[in-house]
Amino acid sequence: MKDQPPMNGAESVVRSLHGAGVEICFANPGTSEMQFVDALDRTGCLRCVLGLFEGAVTGAADGYARMARKPAVTLLHLAPGLSNAAANMHNARKARTPMINLVGDHALRHRQYDAPLTADVEGAARPFSDWVRTAMTPGQFAADAMDAFAAATAKPGAIATLIAPADVGWDAGGVLAPPPPPPVSAAPDEAALTDAVRALGADGPTVFLVGGSVLEDPDALALLHGIAARTGADLLAPTSNRRIERGRGRAGIPRIPYAIDLALDTLKTYKTAILVEAMPPVGFFAYPGRPSLLLPEDCEVLTLSGLDGDGPGTVAALADRLGAPAVTPADAPLPAPPSPGAITPETVAAAVAAAMPENAIVVDESITSGRAIYDTTAGCSPHSWLAITGGAIGIGPPLAAGAACAAPDRPVITLQADGSAMYTIQALWTQARENLNVTTVIFANRTYQILKHELFNVGANPGRSALDMLDLDRPTLDFVSLAKGMGVPGIRVEDVHELFKALQSAAQEPGPFLIEAVM
Amino acid sequence: MKDQPPMNGAESVVRSLHGAGVEICFANPGTSEMQFVDALDRTGCLRCVLGLFEGAVTGAADGYARMARKPAVTLLHLAPGLSNAAANMHNARKARTPMINLVGDHALRHRQYDAPLTADVEGAARPFSDWVRTAMTPGQFAADAMDAFAAATAKPGAIATLIAPADVGWDAGGVLAPPPPPPVSAAPDEAALTDAVRALGADGPTVFLVGGSVLEDPDALALLHGIAARTGADLLAPTSNRRIERGRGRAGIPRIPYAIDLALDTLKTYKTAILVEAMPPVGFFAYPGRPSLLLPEDCEVLTLSGLDGDGPGTVAALADRLGAPAVTPADAPLPAPPSPGAITPETVAAAVAAAMPENAIVVDESITSGRAIYDTTAGCSPHSWLAITGGAIGIGPPLAAGAACAAPDRPVITLQADGSAMYTIQALWTQARENLNVTTVIFANRTYQILKHELFNVGANPGRSALDMLDLDRPTLDFVSLAKGMGVPGIRVEDVHELFKALQSAAQEPGPFLIEAVM
Repeated sequence: MKDQPPMNGAESVVRSLHGAGVEICFANPGTSEMQFVDALDRTGCLRCVLGLFEGAVTGAADGYARMARKPAVTLLHLAPGLSNAAANMHNARKARTPMINLVGDHALRHRQYDAPLTADVEGAARPFSDWVRTAMTPGQFAADAMDAFAAATAKPGAIATLIAPADVGWDAGGVLAPPPPPPVSAAPDEAALTDAVRALGADGPTVFLVGGSVLEDPDALALLHGIAARTGADLLAPTSNRRIERGRGRAGIPRIPYAIDLALDTLKTYKTAILVEAMPPVGFFAYPGRPSLLLPEDCEVLTLSGLDGDGPGTVAALADRLGAPAVTPADAPLPAPPSPGAITPETVAAAVAAAMPENAIVVDESITSGRAIYDTTAGCSPHSWLAITGGAIGIGPPLAAGAACAAPDRPVITLQADGSAMYTIQALWTQARENLNVTTVIFANRTYQILKHELFNVGANPGRSALDMLDLDRPTLDFVSLAKGMGVPGIRVEDVHELFKALQSAAQEPGPFLIEAVM
Repeated sequence: MKDQPPMNGAESVVRSLHGAGVEICFANPGTSEMQFVDALDRTGCLRCVLGLFEGAVTGAADGYARMARKPAVTLLHLAPGLSNAAANMHNARKARTPMINLVGDHALRHRQYDAPLTADVEGAARPFSDWVRTAMTPGQFAADAMDAFAAATAKPGAIATLIAPADVGWDAGGVLAPPPPPPVSAAPDEAALTDAVRALGADGPTVFLVGGSVLEDPDALALLHGIAARTGADLLAPTSNRRIERGRGRAGIPRIPYAIDLALDTLKTYKTAILVEAMPPVGFFAYPGRPSLLLPEDCEVLTLSGLDGDGPGTVAALADRLGAPAVTPADAPLPAPPSPGAITPETVAAAVAAAMPENAIVVDESITSGRAIYDTTAGCSPHSWLAITGGAIGIGPPLAAGAACAAPDRPVITLQADGSAMYTIQALWTQARENLNVTTVIFANRTYQILKHELFNVGANPGRSALDMLDLDRPTLDFVSLAKGMGVPGIRVEDVHELFKALQSAAQEPGPFLIEAVM
């Protein structure tokens, strides 16, 4: 043992993270992370996946964790690299996905100088993290990493950002740290159960607003359907969710619509809302003359399970009190493959539903073009549905890459708006490098269509200059060439039956593929 | 006047910025900025240029201001949009480029709720801004914008970020605000001049470290050469600078090398350093066993002019005290066009120098591949040299777009490393949309070459996993296809004479072009 070189801080962190069960590192490293690149290389503990832009790194870490149900670690470069990563940290934070970010910083002695890359890394991390710390000594570094692991994996999942000054990583004196004890779920809240039983017996209408881990648990959803059948309550999920397990033979759940007026209309009659791992619903944006909170002012709101609670256990306890059995409603019908015709938001849903492969993972950043797809695919063979959760567009290609890393045997279908695709299009390269079975469907309506609706919502009557800030033509984006540039083959289709056929064949083939669906 | 609709906050800001001399808005707006899109449209005051990613927006605002010598305004979408923009805000901040960012936020009443896009916008802005404020009333909003303008344009230039809750923009009650008085430069510091004269008369060697606006002023540089000739002092510029006016008939200046050992070697003999709009030089990164500060410990450091001083005026005053005339050294020789052969860091410099068009703007994000180009182009026809200043890679394509917007009659040559290009490649689309005369040369060495040096600097001996995080092959990036995808024509060249010919012809043609130079 005497001849072993002393372990440095970076190696102690890599080995300790591996000891806690972390298996993968999504990375876009720079100079201040070279000791981590070295430690990852020498130890061989973790699979290392390179992203060419940091938003691709954190988006992939989110997709991985949604499917693997455990965190990835990311490797990022000082404050600018962290900020490039922040939009998808934001989305992951709103999804309550566990994530551990290791962000390099200058060596402690170097931080006092105004070097070109000097900036406040902690300050940049805080708005997008639930837990932030800067490591100060090699001996404590692995323990810091285990605190980050504990913070990230505490229910319901959080973003933990550990800032790593270069010398804390490269100096000797690293000490391995044991993994933290696994988090324990709180027992169902008896008083809340009693309240819910009382409310369900009172005059309705009543709605369960159900999010988080309940949506990932078909058994819990079936029990909720049993409770609904017994009590007459309705079930709704938030507009955007980390993951929904759904499809043929599973109890489904509708979502609150995105559009403010539809959302208000959906919720306007409820006297009681019972929250299960969900928050009181709020408008995506405020609008002149519309309320921020979506439930009626006189609606009674009961929290049956908080975001950090055991939603499935609480649902089971409520079903038990009510004597409600699990119920799986009849499967929704599957649409026939679409006949030849234009690709529209309506026809595209049938194409996706009819082509959906077995055991798929669907990544949904389809924004306006794909709004009909969720309902239309309800009866498809069982699949996982991952959506953009924080409104920070540019999650689809990296989320798909990360999900595919976690579930290499499952085909991934990315439903991708064109404008949003351009924020993290670099993730296609990672899909090619890792040979991931991801089929990306670009909904090429060549506009920020949602913003045209929004401009109307604020009462504007747009002229040329406004439309120039919302239209994506001049020049037309050619996604087949963009994909080719990053090693991903693809085709352009202008007919919905061609889209159906292309999607069906692409999902069967290994490796990534891109379909530009011109709308 | 009675029939005029009352002005809203957004319109008062747009009109007041225009009144202060702002002419252009680089934008990637979202829902919370729709009232600005509407105000920009109705007033028609500002040229609006769309970017498909926020890093392209702030990089362009930086390039515009470097050439126009006045700020652009940007339009960004909440905390995630701001963070996407932050890396190039960081570069602009280190360049001391003036910039005004308008960042939409949720309506004031909506901020208390955990809506999907809710995050701490001020917190996200602060690490990358010199001035941050949130507008609170429509009546004060334009005055806030004028305070932002004053902060941005105070010498030497700063990043001012004004956060705009949606309702403060859309509510009526906007009041136009007059422009602030122009900033006044401090007079040269007589005591500092006396100190400098004393130091220049003492035992040397002495070096002037010269940055900021002095590098943009050929007359000031010629006076410095006269002072150098009279006193035996040397002249050096920082490694990275906002803008250097240079070329045939102008007095040039060498830069401190990037590589730590070369930088230390360059500075090791100096007994005295005189700072003119420059800071004491510091290593780009810290390294084990190397100092952070680059000047010898016993070197006397005199500040002749601070970053916020009048460097050219101070240089003129010093030349006057010393009786030193302006001196323009003989032009450096121009290399012949390169013979056919491989494209290497050495041969590429001759190709660029021999093909340099008249009156060019050179954008330098060439990192390792282009280190010889600066010296080799010293005798080219007069040109402006704009470099990445903050180490946040991904500035080249947007910086070029913004510079071309400011100087539409001048050809722009972007010297672009391949790895760095991928962070804001979206700016090619803006180049195409605005039909900007930008020729991008991609130095396709297909690796993060600089990181291989850096890995060696921390003493590592990289294996397969480390190289996988540094190599950009598997798959090879095809930049010609990427450019085509965004409406920019291009070619791939593998011979340095072909590169020379392609560069020469592309710079003569209007509109953007991309040359992938395989190394």
